[in-house]
Amino acid sequence: MRPLHERRCAPWPADRPALIPTDTQALLAQIDGWALTDDGTAIERELRFDDFHRVMAFVNALAWIAHREDHHPDLVVGYGRCTVRFQTHSAGGLTDNDFICAAKVDRLTAD
Amino acid sequence: MRPLHERRCAPWPADRPALIPTDTQALLAQIDGWALTDDGTAIERELRFDDFHRVMAFVNALAWIAHREDHHPDLVVGYGRCTVRFQTHSAGGLTDNDFICAAKVDRLTAD
Repeated sequence: MRPLHERRCAPWPADRPALIPTDTQALLAQIDGWALTDDGTAIERELRFDDFHRVMAFVNALAWIAHREDHHPDLVVGYGRCTVRFQTHSAGGLTDNDFICAAKVDRLTAD
Repeated sequence: MRPLHERRCAPWPADRPALIPTDTQALLAQIDGWALTDDGTAIERELRFDDFHRVMAFVNALAWIAHREDHHPDLVVGYGRCTVRFQTHSAGGLTDNDFICAAKVDRLTAD
């Protein structure tokens, strides 16, 4: 299997359930700085930046990924920070698509 | 006094308290679609859009205002929606600057 950040999102079949915890943990181990939310239905990462302009530049790069993959995060944006949350609402939990997008976000900020 | 959307933000003196409720209500009456948060220390407005790209275009216009006024909102962004919250953290509540920025946001979406 190719690394997550090299994969592309694909529509998740309506009758396919969300990932089970074992699969979730295996994928979580492949991304950096993300945590499961308390209810286990989403992954979340907070990123810090020096100023508002840098936050916005990041948000726009993230928006490009989201549009290209047709998979959209929820964001909380403030001065110097952005929390990114991925989940697959239609599946009621996490799918490969969430981890693929998370890995692409990681590539934006990787050294 | 000029309309709120024509005014510019100015640094709020460190020893000047946040607005009192009477002043808050008078300014709130001059903006559209905003509500006080439950604790009365911020104003908030949710805007809806047809898709993610439109949300992002709005967020970038808002970012321009925020940078120009050096007064920055907190945002919650999702597919088709953006909640904008203004408060003056340094004053521990609301100041003229919050309502000036809110009025400028209203101008972005006004018919």
